[in-house]
Amino acid sequence: MAEFEQLEAVRLDAETGELVLLDQTLLPGEVAFLRLRTVESLWRAIRTLQVRGAPAIGIAAGYGMYLAARHSTAATYADLRRDLVTARGHLAASRPTAVNLFWALERMVACLDRNSPLPVPDIKQALLAEADAIREEDVRMCRALGEYGLSLLRPGMGILTHCNAGRLAAGGCGTALAPVYAGHERNYNFRVFADETRPLLQGARLTTFELHAAGVDVTLICDNMASMVMKKGWVQAVLVGCDRVAKNGDVANKIGTSGVAILANRHRIPFYVCAPSSTIDMACPNGDAIAIEERDPDEITTMWYQNRMAPAGIGIFNPAFDVTDSELVTAIITERGIARAPYGEAFKAFGLHASRGL
Amino acid sequence: MAEFEQLEAVRLDAETGELVLLDQTLLPGEVAFLRLRTVESLWRAIRTLQVRGAPAIGIAAGYGMYLAARHSTAATYADLRRDLVTARGHLAASRPTAVNLFWALERMVACLDRNSPLPVPDIKQALLAEADAIREEDVRMCRALGEYGLSLLRPGMGILTHCNAGRLAAGGCGTALAPVYAGHERNYNFRVFADETRPLLQGARLTTFELHAAGVDVTLICDNMASMVMKKGWVQAVLVGCDRVAKNGDVANKIGTSGVAILANRHRIPFYVCAPSSTIDMACPNGDAIAIEERDPDEITTMWYQNRMAPAGIGIFNPAFDVTDSELVTAIITERGIARAPYGEAFKAFGLHASRGL
Repeated sequence: MAEFEQLEAVRLDAETGELVLLDQTLLPGEVAFLRLRTVESLWRAIRTLQVRGAPAIGIAAGYGMYLAARHSTAATYADLRRDLVTARGHLAASRPTAVNLFWALERMVACLDRNSPLPVPDIKQALLAEADAIREEDVRMCRALGEYGLSLLRPGMGILTHCNAGRLAAGGCGTALAPVYAGHERNYNFRVFADETRPLLQGARLTTFELHAAGVDVTLICDNMASMVMKKGWVQAVLVGCDRVAKNGDVANKIGTSGVAILANRHRIPFYVCAPSSTIDMACPNGDAIAIEERDPDEITTMWYQNRMAPAGIGIFNPAFDVTDSELVTAIITERGIARAPYGEAFKAFGLHASRGL
Repeated sequence: MAEFEQLEAVRLDAETGELVLLDQTLLPGEVAFLRLRTVESLWRAIRTLQVRGAPAIGIAAGYGMYLAARHSTAATYADLRRDLVTARGHLAASRPTAVNLFWALERMVACLDRNSPLPVPDIKQALLAEADAIREEDVRMCRALGEYGLSLLRPGMGILTHCNAGRLAAGGCGTALAPVYAGHERNYNFRVFADETRPLLQGARLTTFELHAAGVDVTLICDNMASMVMKKGWVQAVLVGCDRVAKNGDVANKIGTSGVAILANRHRIPFYVCAPSSTIDMACPNGDAIAIEERDPDEITTMWYQNRMAPAGIGIFNPAFDVTDSELVTAIITERGIARAPYGEAFKAFGLHASRGL
């Protein structure tokens, strides 16, 4: 079992200028790190889920823009901007659903433009500082979100989570798992149930892995067992992360999240979404406006398997995310506080506006 | 792709006296048949799901009792009874949840006792005829159930099913899939969505396989995608089989069924349980009284996989079935007609009583 501290999803090696990613496709069998120098290799890493989780993708995208700047031969701000706009377009095409990706890319371009009067080497330094800031803010965000979330929990609770929104998905201790870690530090003795999260098994491979490494009691279940575990009275709260929250509180998150919300509603269990404010998209009116990525059918039929597990020739539907209606969401936990319906009002009270550059 | 007619789950080879099972653990990759001569080998085949599905298990158990009689050296009814009681005890310990298993075993013992005055060879012939009758009744049951089920459906409907309750699970055309096949013969152009059904993937491996072989339009989804498919308006009815129905209409079926029922309720989609009357246990007051099998955690972490997909040392919960509250069940479709709540009354109207030897 790996040391918990080793499990850093994204960081920059300051000496070599390489972006270092923990390759999440190899977990839990192997803890191995990728060292990237190019935007192309980062595009591939995001696309193939070597790095995943909305906050971690945002951080990686920030550093990706820095890599583009670092390796640019541009001698002027205008030329550097051209190179960075190309990099932004490339990275923006990696995955469509997580808003942090676009948010981080825009933030890096805004930083570039803000520093346009400076010499190019100084602009590059400013871009590095901005990417570092995105990462450091994420670490602080995770901690603050964890404390807000913990205020809703009690010692000894059973907590169900879906997919992975933990340390492996963020710069800090995660979003959905941040309250779990905050409670673990205080000996809350949570019992966590991790949905395995088909097709790519982020719950089975990642959530159980990092919680077990941290010493948290975790039990793995298949996605279709959540209703039974809830009915048995083993779950007092559901905590999930999110990839994008619409202004009305509709939540796009890993496929299956909306089903878990409906089950929790039926079993009268609070359903909490843990959302850094960077995932709240005030320009998006509701869930219908969120693009949902569809991925390769092979992920269902063959990936991870020795043999093909379904016949050739049948239809396959493989959406990567779904949308949970805001009425099913008990509260949305952010690093700025806990939002309850009506969500649009709550988000405005946190200082979020559609015009802030999303 | 195999011929649909080849897909016979259970039959007796009259010439060799062997029980011939389609090995369902090898599907969809390989269509291979097991030829069994002993109760021990049948116990293993049921335990390891080489034969599965409540009706098919009942048929196999009937023939298993015949195998025990055929190979018995008993010269008297009393000695033969001793051998068959031993066989019954062994087979009854294979799996706990499907009531058909116990129903078929008791029916074979009742046949034995009914024929006690006859010479032993004639008793053995009577047992073979009884096992054949269980199988033939199942074929007729499937057809009748299919017609009743079809009366609830309309051409062009989208139908979601969970696990496999089709031809591979029964002596005839299945239970939950019987209405689908009945509609397919009439060009109803159903579009079927098959939950893959973790951990053992009966939906991915078996339901898609047999529907595709029959020429039915089938789309495979992961279990956690059902809510999204329902929300998109692609599903107008849910059809599932069952392993045991309590007197009050609570339904034990493959793990995940109760979750699908809750999702269907939320999305206002009728949820139909297809239940041969042999699965209705009038001696069982409600779902709390149904034993739920827990299976090996390795089914979740390693089976079917090249590599272990979850870390060692974590907890695993692996129930094979769950219970769906009767209030979530729109109707229970049997070969005797369509039951609606209150189910106890409806079952009595079908002539079912607790005293009928279950």
